[in-house]
Amino acid sequence: MSSRLDDFRAYRTRMNERIGEIDHLGIKRFFGLDSGAYRDQALDGKTKELLGLVASTVLRCNDCIDYHLEQCVNAGWTDEELFDALNVALVVGGSIVIPHLRHAVETIDLIRAETMASARPDEI
Amino acid sequence: MSSRLDDFRAYRTRMNERIGEIDHLGIKRFFGLDSGAYRDQALDGKTKELLGLVASTVLRCNDCIDYHLEQCVNAGWTDEELFDALNVALVVGGSIVIPHLRHAVETIDLIRAETMASARPDEI
Amino acid sequence: MSSRLDDFRAYRTRMNERIGEIDHLGIKRFFGLDSGAYRDQALDGKTKELLGLVASTVLRCNDCIDYHLEQCVNAGWTDEELFDALNVALVVGGSIVIPHLRHAVETIDLIRAETMASARPDEI
Amino acid sequence: MSSRLDDFRAYRTRMNERIGEIDHLGIKRFFGLDSGAYRDQALDGKTKELLGLVASTVLRCNDCIDYHLEQCVNAGWTDEELFDALNVALVVGGSIVIPHLRHAVETIDLIRAETMASARPDEI
Amino acid sequence: MSSRLDDFRAYRTRMNERIGEIDHLGIKRFFGLDSGAYRDQALDGKTKELLGLVASTVLRCNDCIDYHLEQCVNAGWTDEELFDALNVALVVGGSIVIPHLRHAVETIDLIRAETMASARPDEI
Amino acid sequence: MSSRLDDFRAYRTRMNERIGEIDHLGIKRFFGLDSGAYRDQALDGKTKELLGLVASTVLRCNDCIDYHLEQCVNAGWTDEELFDALNVALVVGGSIVIPHLRHAVETIDLIRAETMASARPDEI
Repeated sequence: MSSRLDDFRAYRTRMNERIGEIDHLGIKRFFGLDSGAYRDQALDGKTKELLGLVASTVLRCNDCIDYHLEQCVNAGWTDEELFDALNVALVVGGSIVIPHLRHAVETIDLIRAETMASARPDEI
Repeated sequence: MSSRLDDFRAYRTRMNERIGEIDHLGIKRFFGLDSGAYRDQALDGKTKELLGLVASTVLRCNDCIDYHLEQCVNAGWTDEELFDALNVALVVGGSIVIPHLRHAVETIDLIRAETMASARPDEI
Repeated sequence: MSSRLDDFRAYRTRMNERIGEIDHLGIKRFFGLDSGAYRDQALDGKTKELLGLVASTVLRCNDCIDYHLEQCVNAGWTDEELFDALNVALVVGGSIVIPHLRHAVETIDLIRAETMASARPDEI
Repeated sequence: MSSRLDDFRAYRTRMNERIGEIDHLGIKRFFGLDSGAYRDQALDGKTKELLGLVASTVLRCNDCIDYHLEQCVNAGWTDEELFDALNVALVVGGSIVIPHLRHAVETIDLIRAETMASARPDEI
Repeated sequence: MSSRLDDFRAYRTRMNERIGEIDHLGIKRFFGLDSGAYRDQALDGKTKELLGLVASTVLRCNDCIDYHLEQCVNAGWTDEELFDALNVALVVGGSIVIPHLRHAVETIDLIRAETMASARPDEI
Repeated sequence: MSSRLDDFRAYRTRMNERIGEIDHLGIKRFFGLDSGAYRDQALDGKTKELLGLVASTVLRCNDCIDYHLEQCVNAGWTDEELFDALNVALVVGGSIVIPHLRHAVETIDLIRAETMASARPDEI
């Protein structure tokens, strides 16, 4: 059911490994900075993942939206809270954001379906 | 000292009133939607102002940054929390965001200076 | 032949319904504002659909381009007029718009092929 | 009163002449293509100036907005029609467009004030 | 193995031909200007292809990235030089560029695999 | 004569120092990464400054354009080479880049005037 997410995860992992092999110091440090930006500091990581989601949405990057949605769900944000954050992105970014809103809502549904499936494997 | 902020506020108020006079139903409703997006709902307004700040920063709009910084300060975010949010915007948006980071930090300093001045008028 | 358009329409309808179920007041109102913006007012709806097409093209959103092209064709714009509008978008937005110009021209051809097929079903 | 527009026009003219002196074939041809895009072809020039205005607004370029507003006023668009076009830009581009909407409305008022002044010089 | 690139090339050729058939003078001239911009002038074409690659990457257009990567490889840039240029794009454009960095690195690998295959057909 | 550049340099220095005082580890590392990206590696620094200029121009950031133009002039690029690079940015980014082209050409003239003045102080 969630093959779109699985494909993205596999591709992301494979290409991140390939980028690691390139061994460009600047690129490697950028990836480190990127991970570090979402750790608990003055703001907790949970809040910063939501910031990352909204930034990704107004900049209209589906891969970035999917990545941050996974992190947001893992951090404990509920669907209602995610929709409310996406509404801020919609108002700031305008109707040009709507196709990415569709994508984001579909991704949330896919992640929840996975969680439900893995939580109750006997029911599948 | 904070004349840049005062000028922006006066211009913003004057032009928003002028836009109100135009009396275009769609534009008026958009302004209503915009205000509504930052009210307490599934997420509290304080969190959503921070989302608005980061969205404005990655989209590189100084007027929007100034507006949301005022709202963020009023909502109670500390300087350290604002800098941490701006760091997320910097990493997501890249070095092209740096001029807006400079602007944002200057705005935070101007707002704090105003607050300090109005809190202790006898010291000015 | 036009399965790309059919897929887009089905996905768009399905996800818009799903977004409706979310029942977020701000998001629902935004969708209403969006529809309302293209109705006859000071400008007629036909002209505003062309504005929507050019805005979508310079902002480089294929789904938005497809949506507005359908509306533009329904509103009665000819191919030559659509190409002339796309040329404005190309000059304003630069060569980065070219992949979206390719997409737009293909979409116009798909829509015209559908119209021809439905107008003369005996010939299919 | 309209010194902002006068300054922009003078700067624009001076720098366009300077760019002409550079005598770069590609740049010169681009400027020719740009002018040509708004001439009467399949669409009339008046309609295409409105397309240029909306494209400039969603891409958030104040100088481009001012230039196209002058052309739109010269082409005969009324204030109500311009506001209706700007509303499309606002809905497509989101609240990040609002500072540019303020700028555009101020520019329309400045242009109308100039026209009124030059039309009835005895009343000034 | 490199079907993604082959599909892109076939689609690009087919649609460019279709756009040529439209016979819009402005669009045709724009395509001419675009090709001309990468010819040897004050800067050599090789350097300008690298500029085109970085511009395409910070503007986040995968089709444009693929096109310029082919031109860059043909012009003689090595993988290490391309990665170093992509790092500039990453730092300027931020983490939102990362999905396009993945795409670009995959494209470089696909192009190199093609070259290797065509250079040593007996080994395939 | 070049007060615009002097003001920018003073503001940039002052605010970069202020940002340094904030002492946010992520922000400090980002500034380090940014400087590092333009050092000689697989590509020489001179080439990478030109990449930075074109990236800044298509992303339409005047402060970034001014910064990279200074670096480009220091690295030895001639006016004709800079104009040729800016033409690539113009074609990729479209007419929306024109106001930034004006700004860039004015900045080049200001930098050259400074250099001439400091090289022949007796003639001023």
